[in-house]
Amino acid sequence: MLLQRAKALKKVNKKKIINDPVYGFLQIPHELLYDLLQHPYFQRLRRIKQVGMTYLVYPGAMHSRYNHALGAMFLMQKAIQILRSKGQEITDDEALGAYAAILLHDVGHGPFSHALEYLFIDGVRHEEISLRMMEEINVAFNGQLDTAIAIFKGSHPKGFLHQLVSSQLDMDRLDYLTRDSFFTGVSEGVVSWDRIINMLDVRNDQLVVEEKGIYSIEKFIVARRLMYWQVYLHKTVLAAEFMISKIMQRAQELARAGEPLFGTPALLYFFQNKITRAQFNSDPAVITRFAELDDNDLFSALKVWAGHSDPILSALCDGLMHRRLNRVYLFSTAPAPELVEKTAAQVCQQKNILPKDLHYWMQTGAITNDAYLPATDKILILRKNGEIKDVTDLSDNLNLKTLSKTVVKHYLSLPKEISI
Amino acid sequence: MLLQRAKALKKVNKKKIINDPVYGFLQIPHELLYDLLQHPYFQRLRRIKQVGMTYLVYPGAMHSRYNHALGAMFLMQKAIQILRSKGQEITDDEALGAYAAILLHDVGHGPFSHALEYLFIDGVRHEEISLRMMEEINVAFNGQLDTAIAIFKGSHPKGFLHQLVSSQLDMDRLDYLTRDSFFTGVSEGVVSWDRIINMLDVRNDQLVVEEKGIYSIEKFIVARRLMYWQVYLHKTVLAAEFMISKIMQRAQELARAGEPLFGTPALLYFFQNKITRAQFNSDPAVITRFAELDDNDLFSALKVWAGHSDPILSALCDGLMHRRLNRVYLFSTAPAPELVEKTAAQVCQQKNILPKDLHYWMQTGAITNDAYLPATDKILILRKNGEIKDVTDLSDNLNLKTLSKTVVKHYLSLPKEISI
Amino acid sequence: MLLQRAKALKKVNKKKIINDPVYGFLQIPHELLYDLLQHPYFQRLRRIKQVGMTYLVYPGAMHSRYNHALGAMFLMQKAIQILRSKGQEITDDEALGAYAAILLHDVGHGPFSHALEYLFIDGVRHEEISLRMMEEINVAFNGQLDTAIAIFKGSHPKGFLHQLVSSQLDMDRLDYLTRDSFFTGVSEGVVSWDRIINMLDVRNDQLVVEEKGIYSIEKFIVARRLMYWQVYLHKTVLAAEFMISKIMQRAQELARAGEPLFGTPALLYFFQNKITRAQFNSDPAVITRFAELDDNDLFSALKVWAGHSDPILSALCDGLMHRRLNRVYLFSTAPAPELVEKTAAQVCQQKNILPKDLHYWMQTGAITNDAYLPATDKILILRKNGEIKDVTDLSDNLNLKTLSKTVVKHYLSLPKEISI
Amino acid sequence: MLLQRAKALKKVNKKKIINDPVYGFLQIPHELLYDLLQHPYFQRLRRIKQVGMTYLVYPGAMHSRYNHALGAMFLMQKAIQILRSKGQEITDDEALGAYAAILLHDVGHGPFSHALEYLFIDGVRHEEISLRMMEEINVAFNGQLDTAIAIFKGSHPKGFLHQLVSSQLDMDRLDYLTRDSFFTGVSEGVVSWDRIINMLDVRNDQLVVEEKGIYSIEKFIVARRLMYWQVYLHKTVLAAEFMISKIMQRAQELARAGEPLFGTPALLYFFQNKITRAQFNSDPAVITRFAELDDNDLFSALKVWAGHSDPILSALCDGLMHRRLNRVYLFSTAPAPELVEKTAAQVCQQKNILPKDLHYWMQTGAITNDAYLPATDKILILRKNGEIKDVTDLSDNLNLKTLSKTVVKHYLSLPKEISI
Repeated sequence: MLLQRAKALKKVNKKKIINDPVYGFLQIPHELLYDLLQHPYFQRLRRIKQVGMTYLVYPGAMHSRYNHALGAMFLMQKAIQILRSKGQEITDDEALGAYAAILLHDVGHGPFSHALEYLFIDGVRHEEISLRMMEEINVAFNGQLDTAIAIFKGSHPKGFLHQLVSSQLDMDRLDYLTRDSFFTGVSEGVVSWDRIINMLDVRNDQLVVEEKGIYSIEKFIVARRLMYWQVYLHKTVLAAEFMISKIMQRAQELARAGEPLFGTPALLYFFQNKITRAQFNSDPAVITRFAELDDNDLFSALKVWAGHSDPILSALCDGLMHRRLNRVYLFSTAPAPELVEKTAAQVCQQKNILPKDLHYWMQTGAITNDAYLPATDKILILRKNGEIKDVTDLSDNLNLKTLSKTVVKHYLSLPKEISI
Repeated sequence: MLLQRAKALKKVNKKKIINDPVYGFLQIPHELLYDLLQHPYFQRLRRIKQVGMTYLVYPGAMHSRYNHALGAMFLMQKAIQILRSKGQEITDDEALGAYAAILLHDVGHGPFSHALEYLFIDGVRHEEISLRMMEEINVAFNGQLDTAIAIFKGSHPKGFLHQLVSSQLDMDRLDYLTRDSFFTGVSEGVVSWDRIINMLDVRNDQLVVEEKGIYSIEKFIVARRLMYWQVYLHKTVLAAEFMISKIMQRAQELARAGEPLFGTPALLYFFQNKITRAQFNSDPAVITRFAELDDNDLFSALKVWAGHSDPILSALCDGLMHRRLNRVYLFSTAPAPELVEKTAAQVCQQKNILPKDLHYWMQTGAITNDAYLPATDKILILRKNGEIKDVTDLSDNLNLKTLSKTVVKHYLSLPKEISI
Repeated sequence: MLLQRAKALKKVNKKKIINDPVYGFLQIPHELLYDLLQHPYFQRLRRIKQVGMTYLVYPGAMHSRYNHALGAMFLMQKAIQILRSKGQEITDDEALGAYAAILLHDVGHGPFSHALEYLFIDGVRHEEISLRMMEEINVAFNGQLDTAIAIFKGSHPKGFLHQLVSSQLDMDRLDYLTRDSFFTGVSEGVVSWDRIINMLDVRNDQLVVEEKGIYSIEKFIVARRLMYWQVYLHKTVLAAEFMISKIMQRAQELARAGEPLFGTPALLYFFQNKITRAQFNSDPAVITRFAELDDNDLFSALKVWAGHSDPILSALCDGLMHRRLNRVYLFSTAPAPELVEKTAAQVCQQKNILPKDLHYWMQTGAITNDAYLPATDKILILRKNGEIKDVTDLSDNLNLKTLSKTVVKHYLSLPKEISI
Repeated sequence: MLLQRAKALKKVNKKKIINDPVYGFLQIPHELLYDLLQHPYFQRLRRIKQVGMTYLVYPGAMHSRYNHALGAMFLMQKAIQILRSKGQEITDDEALGAYAAILLHDVGHGPFSHALEYLFIDGVRHEEISLRMMEEINVAFNGQLDTAIAIFKGSHPKGFLHQLVSSQLDMDRLDYLTRDSFFTGVSEGVVSWDRIINMLDVRNDQLVVEEKGIYSIEKFIVARRLMYWQVYLHKTVLAAEFMISKIMQRAQELARAGEPLFGTPALLYFFQNKITRAQFNSDPAVITRFAELDDNDLFSALKVWAGHSDPILSALCDGLMHRRLNRVYLFSTAPAPELVEKTAAQVCQQKNILPKDLHYWMQTGAITNDAYLPATDKILILRKNGEIKDVTDLSDNLNLKTLSKTVVKHYLSLPKEISI
């Protein structure tokens, strides 16, 4: 029999296609998905930039989390189609679940969440917020997201569907590397998503990659590593993220101390009150308020705060608005305590601040880049003889083995006026 | 106060290159230009979307006016290089002036300015604001923008330099068609900017295009026409622009009537006070305040207003936030008065509003699409025999002649609940 | 004998994917198609350039007819998928037939067939040769091509399938415009194939385009027109095609006059014998021999003939090999007889030839460019109200009406030494 | 002073631009270069595929060596411009020399030269033939290539110019990786040529790369390695190259044994006579004849030989024409002698050949992939503190160190009927 088509998923809003600069035309394959797109929790992703402050280095990187979620769903459609064509059984309900799960996998991200995770809700990670939002939406949709949630949580019997949503080779990563590379213009990040997806298969309920795709996997891991250094952990991006993080921390402290502060009601809700995990679990208002936040709340406030009477807050805001960012230095080992101490004294003097406020203007710490972490979950290669191996055991030299080691760099972020 | 003078950077990184997803690497060819980039008036363009509400239809279209200005400067570099290689004399000062002029040509745009022109400063067009900002910057830069301003205003002796900045074949249009096509994913808008610029020359102080470029010009005009219908005047984009325009109008009316209204100080300044041309001319605070506005001010306020006690304001804001937009109908002739009247009554009933408030929910009028307007200024073709002709007199059929006619369409914008 | 039957492949790699620089990965959706690819008649298309002499102007245009056939089949897969998703019933057998038909639609092309149609087989068009080859293959494949042939000939009951293979909006045109634009680097020829295919539907057994695709259709017609002037009828391409045509004509005449001539046996077969339609119909050797020919036969001979004792043949060959081509002049009306006569005399003198041999060095005639020919078959638009209209009756101005007029240009092709 | 332009190189053929699908428009910056393009030695590169038999795996890879040479010259223009902008003195004569040198660096390649090096001229490498051709052209151009030849040979005082033509980071490699990746559609091979060239500088007459380009260099080396495994050393490509090599060897043996053989005079010249280095050095006819050869000579002959009376020749040719290629097995260590012996016996039986003819149908040996060979010449990184280091000493993990080890694979190429 020729060409098994996915049987038309019940009532398709047939003509819905969306232009995407990365992949061309995206089709919404089911009306449930179309309805999910319209949900306010999802629409707000239009107003949250995918890569936060990165646009200060790569001006094209204005794309939103909404773009990314749609793109990841497009890749999921390709993956499901390929796996079915190789004889893997995936029901229509499971396919729909996988589409909804990938569409909503990042729905719990707040604005600038790389820099600001935990700012709004103490100790609660964005994955938990995503899950909570999905559960809420599920109630509104009468349980139509049951399968999606099971796949997202990893409790669905077919574990490979979860791997498509969340693993070292999931549709999330394939899309964000492709997309962030596209919008930043960093061509080194290009990933052969088409080839990789074509090479996917399933054995023992695990995603595997056909052996001839091994160089594409190697390239994918290298591209990921390079995107970290060149984009996500770019020194100027780090400086900007530290700065916005310190601004929000300061503003929150002032608000909690009773200082008057300009801001949208949603922002002030999180600044004036400390929201704990307990409250997150018990008070539905937390999610409602959280869902009102986006990049606009932060930037509109930040511009106003540049004129605030608190000298630290206003100086930090003025610096960020005028792109007078710190300079970040990276070291392979932690900088010597004497250097840090000496520099700290210079910063205090130059900024005219007390040592207790040093952390607003000078940051130290470490960043890590894990191109591939076989300890977490592995990328498995399906050999022609049927054997299954971890990718690092197969590559023709030690290249991937070295890539699977975590790289740690130590940073020192300082005002540009201070040099070391 | 938010935006201040650009502190002259001491040590300029002369080899500055910027990644652009559209053209690859952009070089900043002079340190003056680098300093202009840092100016707060220019940096704010990072926070103003190039095509306003278009992202509601084309999710990729998040790109900023900052992106566009850099891109247009890149094309200007190409154009100057080509003209020089053909023997046209352009001094280094003139080249620098042309770069600065194109970089700053749109600096006076406010947020969503296609929808909101005149909202902030009564009767003053964005070109006038651009000029005023350039003049202010020029003072801060000790007259280094003299040539740029002369080119921008058309008072520089070499008129073709002004044409490169502003005419039917300027670097502005070449970039925005290319860029908007790129970010929307509407491949029909692709323009062969490279070929067109290679075909440019100057005769009698007028830009001309070598004859063999005539099909590229024809294609350029067609692409422009199609981008208007498919993107800039897309029915859903129109609906969203009408909506944000009506929201801001209503909010301004409420503010001027003394109603309390959430908003940044800059926004409230323009909402509580009516700024006239006279004030724009005499009060420096107007520009200072204007320069503080960007997309964030509008969207952060709009989200809050969705809970405002004024039923019209809150309903409009709620509609826009949840993408419940009007439906726009287009007609080749104005809709019959009876139809309009009947529909108006339905809208009033459905929205429970008085006829005087009908305009918030129902809009009528006309839009025009001028692909090529030879009456304004012409695109001139340089024939091999040296003759110069308007492009419409040369094309091998009547195609361009028809394209040079203005197309008018009449619209009726209505809540989706009402059908005609 | 060179080319024989394709040995039926025993174990087919069903998941066969092929890299294509234009579309990415192409999938071969059925093993019959994989077997067709291996057939010698089809494999020879690898050695025939899609756009003949065009590479002398656009060096990238080396792509083969094999590339194009695969690409057109890819588009057919998209089209079938879209039509099915809109509820059009297309059986698996019909889908397979449509794939095979588009794959083989050009299989009867000989080398440089735009310039050399009728050179090898007198008065027989390449479509007839394609059909003959398909019928022969069908015998070898035990009738598996019955549906494909019916679709190709237009005798299959579902006429829209034939339109997908051959009409003004067929997959052939969509692919060749896209592909030739890609390989020449003429970005003006880019066609939004993805959008157009997404807009296809069927009414009354006729392909129609949804109304909102009208600008894409307009753009498609304009792109086609421009590709004709800028690529297919480019003056230097014309000059080269006239030249290879005259070379082959001369060589054939010499061969038939009994002159010894270097050449592969297949080439000499067609040069020494005049093959008529009657022979084509009755003698199976004609197709066998024809299938042995490709670009290599012509170019290897042509290089040798540059040293032939016949002064006309050697001079023409030497000219083509060293890219000393004629110059082509285009006129909107036929050049005046006096001009032609005067020029003819100059050519005879310059080339030292008799008037009877003038045609080898000087050509006159007319070329036509039919961007859209509604007289032949129409591109139909499906309006939202269900009405069906010819695209030229719907476009919002006269643009398409003018494009639907045939443009005729008169040419005069002369050695560069002669100027007019 | 603004914008140092390269002073117009004497008399520029101003309007000459060439469309390139990879980079857009290429400009020919000097009329000498334009004249070089027209030279028959260079024009023949139009008829020699850049990557030989690769098109049997990647159908798009039909591009010619002519394309590549133009592309490499384009990159050289970028590189010279960047180095000048960083203050490196490069005279107009040197720039022109560098352009001519890179344009002609591969002019001595014969058809399928990866497979057929030494077939035509015993023991003479293509670089020597390139040099000889350049010297001949230099005579015809009255010494205008003196600087180009000095740069090509490495005898010009500014050694970095030679490095731009030939080193581990030369314009040749940057173009061929970019171009072969483009035409094969193997997106993994994409190299950020733009970024790499922007990072180039010169210290102590050596090309160096600014430190912040280190990830682009790493990516370049990885991409190169992958292109080797995925394209240049692809198993099917190897099989086809072995096959054409064996065909030509057999045909040459038959010709030298006096067997009649179809072929162009140029091909037969090299097949009937054994051309030694001594003859290459002394007899000008050798180069003249060599310059007549291109892909057409080989393929036109090969098709005819499929009907030759010699069973080995005809069987090999028939196999190649119908793409019945050997299967290649790769091993990390040399296959066991017993396996080779046993397999050899099977091949002899299956093909009905004597052990002395085994080598036509079965090949063994080793291939190597040197992604980066610091022993030959190094890629040097210029640190911010002015220090210069080999790239492998700087990368943040052992990744590049492992990449700089030569990878050896052992192959066994067998008819598909035999399995191991």
